[in-house]
Amino acid sequence: MTSPQAREEAVLEAVRKRRERVNEAIPENLPIRRPERLYEASRYLLDAGGKRLRPTVLLTTAEALADVSPLSVDYRSFPTLDDAQPDGTAVGGRDASAQSSAVIDVMNAAVSVEVIQSFTLIHDDIMDDDDLRRGVPAVHREYDLETAILAGDTLYSKAFEIMLETGAKPDRTVEALDVLATTCTKICEGQSLDVSFEKREDVSTEEYLEMVEQKTAVLYAASACLPAVLMGADDETIDALYGYGLDIGRAFQIQDDVLDLTVPSEELGKQRGSDLVENKQTLITVHARDQGVDVENLVDTTDVDAVSEAEIDDAVATLEESGSIGYANEMARDLVEQGKARLEVLPDNDARELLLELADYLIERGY
Amino acid sequence: MTSPQAREEAVLEAVRKRRERVNEAIPENLPIRRPERLYEASRYLLDAGGKRLRPTVLLTTAEALADVSPLSVDYRSFPTLDDAQPDGTAVGGRDASAQSSAVIDVMNAAVSVEVIQSFTLIHDDIMDDDDLRRGVPAVHREYDLETAILAGDTLYSKAFEIMLETGAKPDRTVEALDVLATTCTKICEGQSLDVSFEKREDVSTEEYLEMVEQKTAVLYAASACLPAVLMGADDETIDALYGYGLDIGRAFQIQDDVLDLTVPSEELGKQRGSDLVENKQTLITVHARDQGVDVENLVDTTDVDAVSEAEIDDAVATLEESGSIGYANEMARDLVEQGKARLEVLPDNDARELLLELADYLIERGY
Repeated sequence: MTSPQAREEAVLEAVRKRRERVNEAIPENLPIRRPERLYEASRYLLDAGGKRLRPTVLLTTAEALADVSPLSVDYRSFPTLDDAQPDGTAVGGRDASAQSSAVIDVMNAAVSVEVIQSFTLIHDDIMDDDDLRRGVPAVHREYDLETAILAGDTLYSKAFEIMLETGAKPDRTVEALDVLATTCTKICEGQSLDVSFEKREDVSTEEYLEMVEQKTAVLYAASACLPAVLMGADDETIDALYGYGLDIGRAFQIQDDVLDLTVPSEELGKQRGSDLVENKQTLITVHARDQGVDVENLVDTTDVDAVSEAEIDDAVATLEESGSIGYANEMARDLVEQGKARLEVLPDNDARELLLELADYLIERGY
Repeated sequence: MTSPQAREEAVLEAVRKRRERVNEAIPENLPIRRPERLYEASRYLLDAGGKRLRPTVLLTTAEALADVSPLSVDYRSFPTLDDAQPDGTAVGGRDASAQSSAVIDVMNAAVSVEVIQSFTLIHDDIMDDDDLRRGVPAVHREYDLETAILAGDTLYSKAFEIMLETGAKPDRTVEALDVLATTCTKICEGQSLDVSFEKREDVSTEEYLEMVEQKTAVLYAASACLPAVLMGADDETIDALYGYGLDIGRAFQIQDDVLDLTVPSEELGKQRGSDLVENKQTLITVHARDQGVDVENLVDTTDVDAVSEAEIDDAVATLEESGSIGYANEMARDLVEQGKARLEVLPDNDARELLLELADYLIERGY
């Protein structure tokens, strides 16, 4: 039995190593080319950092499915599930009798998902008129509004181009593109709900969870199920992995809302408590309102740049007293446990173990 | 020999009939659903009108390829080229020996292309801060900036979802998605060049034509080649149709730039001469500068809402004197002839005749 600290360090190390590979892959899939300013703006946020959690989920799921040791196989020449195993059976395979398929580039799928994430951040920052992201100016601040809209639009189609080039069989590529397209549609729907909630004071827990599922969780779900789609896993495996991603994605967003209140601004890379200032609905505010807290007047300042740390401290204390932060923590924990249980469809191997630990990490992380 | 007037009326009638079918198809492929405000904003420009020229090119190309009488076959149950002809050969077919494929929904491809066009208009209007489009307020004016960005983003992924559902064979669907994704990337690149040209006074004819190819012509090229891709035509046919679309698309944009100067504001649905006010580079201004015209000072007013008709009249007179409008007309005519010549790969039928006439119409239209 390893200690919690040792376990967390092992997860961080696993994330770090995959992040390095993803960081190497991004310029390969998305080189700066003419018109340079457009591509520089498209790469700006991608190059500014990011934990690459979604690509890590995707690459680790691929390893678990292929039943290979973590980091032992080149992600750009990755085995599918089409080859029969030594005992003549296939692991979760759909058509073991079909002829052996060429290897696929599962890194392309990982980069595609991160590129979609980056496109949504660029456009979201315009919509929220946020100044900072990942500790650097938002793209529409570093460049301008036109360039930021276009950079997001360019990343959007590039994500599809990159996903089209994994080398997977055509029917699986079609299915992967369908996952990608419907995921993007749901993200837009979720963002639209999020914007509309800012003007409402009667958002229910159910509505909030629906919004979070669409805005955030579907991209985790896509990340977890795409390797299964591209490698030719059966529908039961694909569905279970989608469910795992949906659960941990919702937990991730709930934890993100908690961290917006509890982590110092320097570590967050943006103003702590900005959600409260911008009147964003979170599970915490929805719960607090149910407890009789006057959520709309928790923070009087309406400008993120003008709010004081003391004002945020007072608001957080109120939300702790009402049990709302604890409620959010508990909900995130339940979702993570639900998601972990779904991984029983995977072979019992080190990569699956890592997916279980990644789920815990999403709600135990400090930022 | 029919008269030019009779020919133009026949083209307009053909466009009108296809437009009606496309207008019926759009709500089927893009119903208003939750969140309603998002989908209403996404449909706003599509419902406001539009000539549906790109879908018309696509549907008519499909008819020419299938060698069927115009409007005689349901676009949603359209034949592919997989069936051998009575004499045992296939028309432009890739694999006549393969088993008969089910019919495909070529209307989906037509709607997908129109949805992409609509997404680019919504985002372009934000970037140019234009107030009017098709005689109605731009989406970011009728709704707001957030909703307009999101409506465009929603249409973007919906176009891919719709193109994924034509029922074509997986390898052809993959190729069609590749055409769609690379087309979107090029449109973004072209728009980026267009924006950067506004700050430059030394744009060459070659640079202008490159920009127009990317910003406008590639979507015509996609429209012309996509039925060939989805129906299983050979590469020579696909390439020739792509070239036809590229040529008539460039001609269309050049003519659009001419019309911006010569058609009354009421007919245009926006202020006449707005390109000059906004300092947009067109083939006309590039040519005029080469002739020594002080293009930057043709119109002193910098606000589209404040410019007078007299000021535009003077500018247009100068551009006519320098031969620049005539030069643009001639270039558009040459491109149309070049594009028409490429249609020799198609069977000689009524639909091909219509594609030839459509090419002429693009530069003879009054608005």
